[in-house]
Amino acid sequence: MLIARSVERLEPYVPGEQPKNRNVVKLNTNENPYPPSPECARVLAGFDLDRLRRYPDPEFAELRKAIAGRNGCGVENVFVGNGSDEILSLSAKAFVENDGTIGSLDPSYSLYKTLAAIRDVEWKGLQGLRGLKGVEGEGLGLSNSSVLSNFSSLFLLTNPNAPTGEFVEPEAVAEFAKGFGGVVIVDEAYADFARANCMALATAHGNRNLIVMRTFSKSYSLAGLRVGYCVGPAELVAALYKVKDSYNVDAVAQAVALAAYADEAWMRANAEKIKATRRWFSQELERRGWDVIPSEANFVFARPAAPATAEELFAALRAGGIYVRYFKTPNTRDRLRVTIGTDEQMKTLLEAIDASYK
Amino acid sequence: MLIARSVERLEPYVPGEQPKNRNVVKLNTNENPYPPSPECARVLAGFDLDRLRRYPDPEFAELRKAIAGRNGCGVENVFVGNGSDEILSLSAKAFVENDGTIGSLDPSYSLYKTLAAIRDVEWKGLQGLRGLKGVEGEGLGLSNSSVLSNFSSLFLLTNPNAPTGEFVEPEAVAEFAKGFGGVVIVDEAYADFARANCMALATAHGNRNLIVMRTFSKSYSLAGLRVGYCVGPAELVAALYKVKDSYNVDAVAQAVALAAYADEAWMRANAEKIKATRRWFSQELERRGWDVIPSEANFVFARPAAPATAEELFAALRAGGIYVRYFKTPNTRDRLRVTIGTDEQMKTLLEAIDASYK
Repeated sequence: MLIARSVERLEPYVPGEQPKNRNVVKLNTNENPYPPSPECARVLAGFDLDRLRRYPDPEFAELRKAIAGRNGCGVENVFVGNGSDEILSLSAKAFVENDGTIGSLDPSYSLYKTLAAIRDVEWKGLQGLRGLKGVEGEGLGLSNSSVLSNFSSLFLLTNPNAPTGEFVEPEAVAEFAKGFGGVVIVDEAYADFARANCMALATAHGNRNLIVMRTFSKSYSLAGLRVGYCVGPAELVAALYKVKDSYNVDAVAQAVALAAYADEAWMRANAEKIKATRRWFSQELERRGWDVIPSEANFVFARPAAPATAEELFAALRAGGIYVRYFKTPNTRDRLRVTIGTDEQMKTLLEAIDASYK
Repeated sequence: MLIARSVERLEPYVPGEQPKNRNVVKLNTNENPYPPSPECARVLAGFDLDRLRRYPDPEFAELRKAIAGRNGCGVENVFVGNGSDEILSLSAKAFVENDGTIGSLDPSYSLYKTLAAIRDVEWKGLQGLRGLKGVEGEGLGLSNSSVLSNFSSLFLLTNPNAPTGEFVEPEAVAEFAKGFGGVVIVDEAYADFARANCMALATAHGNRNLIVMRTFSKSYSLAGLRVGYCVGPAELVAALYKVKDSYNVDAVAQAVALAAYADEAWMRANAEKIKATRRWFSQELERRGWDVIPSEANFVFARPAAPATAEELFAALRAGGIYVRYFKTPNTRDRLRVTIGTDEQMKTLLEAIDASYK
């Protein structure tokens, strides 16, 4: 009685393990293996304690200006959150009625389902391991599909998708959004590892319902800091401002994220290294008979060669101090999601894989 | 259509101004005039960038352990949020049904009303400038009152109250909670400036519905960091965990808050200075014919001596670079809420007040 019924029956989202042991080869939560820009350390070391004493800028003006500047839009088109998780949670408030629906690809980021449960609305998944393309063989021409009318409120389109790593071309995303009655958030957490992105759609004249969301957690190596942002129509951004906590992004996070964002070259260099490792590592898996979905993200989603199963391998690797991710749902349980780490980490993993096949 | 109806009609909460100009005498948002513990700077300067690269501890184990240890409860009784604002927002999800009600004193922290509006439920205020005592002359014997049955879901009891500064004795709070059908959150943002607090009620055996909430923003001088926590029955705390974002408190905030919490003596010394200034400043106002509600917080809520009105004085002070807070609602508009700063800041304010009466 004290706890809301929808919360009582809620199955909480289980994030990937964060082991205390630093010797673990940690390839389970898509963290960047390379450190953030050294500018971040400089900001921390020189941080004026007087800025901690005072409330932070509730509108994160500097960070917002930098993001708007790089993307050629106005500051009124930019919102910043305590991680993109918070933006998702605020969107579920701002863009979804109590009798609304939240949709996403299936499989996709498993938090989306929990998000709908917390919001106490229905979640609907667009089936198909290969993302949008998998729906009834219609490819991406979903604008005329009956499927669309089922998703009335908010669609969370991870692109590149997780855990598959697949990429949907911006043209297809644009077509999808055009035919969709509600708000489409293109969750581009992994965009810096992909061949293209949808930012131009978010800032395009005439865009009324598409938001592109980014995070500092992956390409900028700042998962520990919790800063995400999104870009979209001013009316939608204004609605997010209305429902956020007054001071949702702390002063340190604002300053450190700004420093990292300014050092774009550092991020790009790390992303290139990760892409090279991804290419090489994918080939190594394929050489071993694994089925690897071509990935545009900082992970691969791969089916082990027979006779090993994904579940067995996951357990064996974990016992050996190598953490990867295993999702035990019908359309994901034959694969492992492996974060792309350093070349050295991937070699360690390949050796462990080889050993387990002997 | 894209934006939820309840959000469309929402009047956003307006936090106190955060002027860019650092020469302003800023007595408008109850920040601590003294800096946080020097240990905070040490933590920032030595912060391992590898902790930024990785996700933070989703369960803030170290901070939680420290809080549990000091208050003699289990870690399962402690929750930490991105500011206590986030705890309020999560509570509105966890403890309130869609047809529920959020109650608070009136006047009280004006965010509560916005919180109910965002949650799209009714807000009800217990009238009376003097807090619970003001209700129909019943004093605090509210357990038999018809008033209580109107608040079915969540009651937010700020103690000491803002903006009045009044303190309700723990015995009265206990009695109130006992007679209340839903969850009572005692928002103790200002408790370190008060003569007592309700923490023992939160950790008491048999407590089923009372949560005490604290913040690092006021007494610990860390408003810029966004860390709040609460202590209460394990079942209620577990519900908050279920609805929170996976990584709601960033790694830097966890570490800096822990350092500040460990240096309790630093906080206590600052709180004592503020209480001494409050005593002296209240007397100075009374000497000038102001009506000052005896305050147990780091601010006073005072009615200016005639002929000046609060609204006029607010504007005059602001023009002179002194920011205080003015709430233009029927039961607050005859008073100013003045944060207790340093002695020097309060002298500057008194001089400006004297000048405006000339």
